[in-house]
This record gives sequence, structure tokens and C-alpha cells, in this order.
Amino acid sequence: MEPIAIFDVVLVPAPAEAARHHAVPAMEVIGRKHWAIAEGYIPSQSSFAEPALISHETACILNATDTVAHIRITIFFADREPIGPYRVSVAARRTLHLRFNDLEDPAPVPRDTDYASVFESDVPIIVQHTRLDSRRAEVSLLSTIAYAEA
Amino acid sequence: MEPIAIFDVVLVPAPAEAARHHAVPAMEVIGRKHWAIAEGYIPSQSSFAEPALISHETACILNATDTVAHIRITIFFADREPIGPYRVSVAARRTLHLRFNDLEDPAPVPRDTDYASVFESDVPIIVQHTRLDSRRAEVSLLSTIAYAEA
Amino acid sequence: MEPIAIFDVVLVPAPAEAARHHAVPAMEVIGRKHWAIAEGYIPSQSSFAEPALISHETACILNATDTVAHIRITIFFADREPIGPYRVSVAARRTLHLRFNDLEDPAPVPRDTDYASVFESDVPIIVQHTRLDSRRAEVSLLSTIAYAEA
Amino acid sequence: MEPIAIFDVVLVPAPAEAARHHAVPAMEVIGRKHWAIAEGYIPSQSSFAEPALISHETACILNATDTVAHIRITIFFADREPIGPYRVSVAARRTLHLRFNDLEDPAPVPRDTDYASVFESDVPIIVQHTRLDSRRAEVSLLSTIAYAEA
Repeated sequence: MEPIAIFDVVLVPAPAEAARHHAVPAMEVIGRKHWAIAEGYIPSQSSFAEPALISHETACILNATDTVAHIRITIFFADREPIGPYRVSVAARRTLHLRFNDLEDPAPVPRDTDYASVFESDVPIIVQHTRLDSRRAEVSLLSTIAYAEA
Repeated sequence: MEPIAIFDVVLVPAPAEAARHHAVPAMEVIGRKHWAIAEGYIPSQSSFAEPALISHETACILNATDTVAHIRITIFFADREPIGPYRVSVAARRTLHLRFNDLEDPAPVPRDTDYASVFESDVPIIVQHTRLDSRRAEVSLLSTIAYAEA
Repeated sequence: MEPIAIFDVVLVPAPAEAARHHAVPAMEVIGRKHWAIAEGYIPSQSSFAEPALISHETACILNATDTVAHIRITIFFADREPIGPYRVSVAARRTLHLRFNDLEDPAPVPRDTDYASVFESDVPIIVQHTRLDSRRAEVSLLSTIAYAEA
Repeated sequence: MEPIAIFDVVLVPAPAEAARHHAVPAMEVIGRKHWAIAEGYIPSQSSFAEPALISHETACILNATDTVAHIRITIFFADREPIGPYRVSVAARRTLHLRFNDLEDPAPVPRDTDYASVFESDVPIIVQHTRLDSRRAEVSLLSTIAYAEA
């Protein structure tokens, strides 16, 4: 990690596979390798059974590079040691909208519990945090770009 | 793209046309040329027929410069190759609140599908992401500044 | 404006007046001088007459310095020239939660109209954007830190 | 404070205690020492008695370092001198979701009053701002990463 290389920007050739589909031209790599989300809370209650409307916390991850991203996630708590690493991969030129609800290994994320998370990737990615809260009859949303470092 | 020129800031003369209206004095150029929004999801359901209240995802783009901005947008998915570029222009000293719902060429953005987006502009712009979700009877909003690079 | 002085950080002595109240010790100056909010929209509808619950857009401005901040605001639109500057001052060590609804000079901000805004201050400030939307029976909120430049 | 050291990034060994639990490997320190939240408002009304659903403003703080974080918080107002410092500590490798509602010393944060806040820490932290507003029957949420400086 190079603390003074604020942006890892390099030119990459257009991927052959992408070119077959919609002729996406060469795009410069965008993103950073270290991200943190200080807010985390999965309500155990939900007013809906429909999966899209169950209360959930999501880390939206974009890997716009031409290399698979190997990501290590660590979950922090108020009163116990962190759990991790959770390991997820995001294929080249793909986005993964990862529900914290779905993390299982090494342990599920406890419900009704404050947590925070740190993401470490081997290629530049972008992370955005979104919560859908359906404890009450209507849906409430929040979202923010995560905190990034080179 | 100059990875170490973090801010592209130059002094510009007051535009003559603007001066005619409200005497806006010279403003320095603000913005960056590369932006990413990792969250994207257009619900197909909506509780309202009124256009302002139909569920939508918006990229609010500000071009505060005195030159038209030519912007290329690429849409990324979880399980298929990216689509793009979508091409939009934002005139000098104008804002465009672009609904992803309205993108048609080269292909509409699929509903009920996770996506992410990258914006590349030839002049500095600012991009902010907003979603209005009206799947249920009440309106829910989210917004966040997008991720920026020089 | 110095494009390479990313943070204007200087040590300031504790203000005498503050010291009288709660003994706030010397704090370093935090903030930037140029901010932009790409999203703006004031609904003309509101479900409440109570001022705190009327639909509004707010720019929350913090001036943590020991000098009054003189701020010029320019409002940008989709299809007409920008209006401005609006001029607001924020006293030393004060916050101003400025409702765009309240701007009058040189012209009110039109309702039901997309806009964007740029803030230029003579001392470092922090700007956060919040919208309370009460078009429907329940309140919806959004907020995001604005885009900042030195 | 070193205004040109934008990121304080150093390698740290894996903490022995963490290693006992889930074998969290060495993680690089992430965060900054100075944060500001320009928006602040605690409604005195709430539609729920359940603590998790009472209207509240939260500063979610993550200390991913191996050293306790000593944090000084100053609260700014529209028309009076700032109050502070409030002092909170966040243990090593812990997150604290701090409710402004709970701050008592040197004075409670007044309800129905605009405020802003500045955080100064002796080790790098991450701060995210969240408000849950339950003045009306349904819950509304907002969240944004705070403004950061080295």
C-alpha cells in the first residue's frame, strides 16, 4: 500500500469479451483498495416476506477493472473482538450488491446489533452502503458512499 | 488523465450570457472527470402514476464550466458484460438530473436488477446519486455524492 | 485559490468568548472553501403546515473558524442561465442550516424544478445537503456530504 | 497534525487477542483524525417508545486500530457559542454508535435545535452520520459519511 499514490489510475485495453457485446471502449480503472463503513445494523424485524423488501444492509461493490477482485471483509462490534475475514470475489467488470445478511463464514452477522466493516481488495473497487429498513409498514432507505483510502 | 492533478481548478471569465441575466461573476471551475455509483436498482413497481413519484434512480450532474460536457456512461451488472457507452451532454452552466429509467441507447436499463455505473466526462462535473422508491404507499428517498476521481 | 493546498489547516487560539462558556479549547480549522450540491428539488406540495415538516431542501453549513464566513451561492438549472450570487454570512463558530426555500435575493428558487448549487466561501467551511420531503403523509429524508474542493 | 500527510497508513501486527477468536490477520490502519458533521437536529417528538425507534442522531465511529481512540467532540449552534469538549473513548478494534441524545457532559444537546459537530481523535477513525426520524408513524432514515481531514 502506497499512502501517497492517492489514485491508482492506469489505462487498460478494451476487454475482448465486452467488445463482443456492446462495444464498450477502453475505460480507465477507477476505485480504491481500502474502504470502511462505520454504520451497520440489521433489524431482525421486517414487515414483508418478499426478499427485496426484507430489512437488509448492503455493500454495493463495483469492480470496473479487467481483473477479478479478491476482497477481505472484517466486521467490528461494540463489545467484542472483530470477526473475519469474510472472503468475497467480484469478477472483472461486474458489480456485487452484497447483503451482510447473507454472510455466513466464519460466522453470521448478528441481528439487532451495532457493527462496522472494513473492506480490503487486491484491485481498485468502489463501495457504497445502502440500508433498506422495513421494520414498519413502509420502506425506508439510506445510502452513502463508503470511506475510501488508496 | 493526470493522476496527480487532483483538482482541475482554473479561473474563467464571467460568461457574457450569464452576465446579462443576474450578473453572476467569474466562478472557478469545480468538479472531476471520473465518477462511479456502485448502487443501482430500479424497482418495476410504483404506487403512483404521477411522473415525479414513480420509482426512479437519478444521477444529478452539474456542469459548472463554460464548456459543454460530453459524458460517457457505462452500466455494470452482476452476471453479464457491461453495457455502454450511453452518451449524454450537459450544456455549459447547466445541471441535468438524468433518470436511468430514461436511458434507451444502446439498451434500456433492466428493472428489478442490480447495476452500477461509471461516468467519464471531458470537462469537470459533479455527480450525485438519488433514488426515489415508491414501491409502497409512501415515498422513500436516498442520496449520496458519487465516488470521484480526477 | 491554491489548487495544491488541499487542506487549509492552521492552529488558532481558543476564542475568549467561547472560553467563558464551556472552556472549548483551541481547535484546528476544518473545512474547504468550494462546495457543490448537484441535486436540488423543492416540491411545492407538503402534507404538513408545521414549518419543521414542510418539504424543504437544506444546506447545512458549519463555520468552525474564528472568522465570519462570507459565502456566495450560485444556483444552476436545466434549461436557463444560473442565478446568483446569493450572499449569506455565517458567524465565527456557528452553523447555519440554510433552507433554499428561504432564498429571495436575487430571486426565489423555483419549486418543482431541478437545480444544483455551488458554494464559494472566503474561509474553510463544511457543507452537508439534506432534503425533507413530505409530499406524502409520511416524512422522507435524504442527506449527503456535498462535493468539496480546496 | 500534519496537513500534508493525507492518509495515516501504517502496517500493524495482528493483535494477539483477535487472533485467538477468528484469526483476523494483520490489517492496515484506516481512517482520519478530524471529522465534521454539518447537519444535526434531534426532534423532541417520536412515534415510538421502543428505544431503537425513538428519533435519534447517531455518529457511528469505527476505531480499526490497535490503540484506544480518545475523541473530543465540539457541538456548534446557530446562535450561541459552541459547547465542548465532550469526551468519548472507543477501544481498540471496536465501533461505537454514539447517540447525540445520550451526550450529557458538559451539557445535553438541546432538542428541536439545529447543531453541527466536529470530532478530533488521537488515532485514525471513521465517522458516519445517521438520523432515524420517527416524528410520524413511519420511520425515516438518513446517513452520510462525515467530512474528513487528515
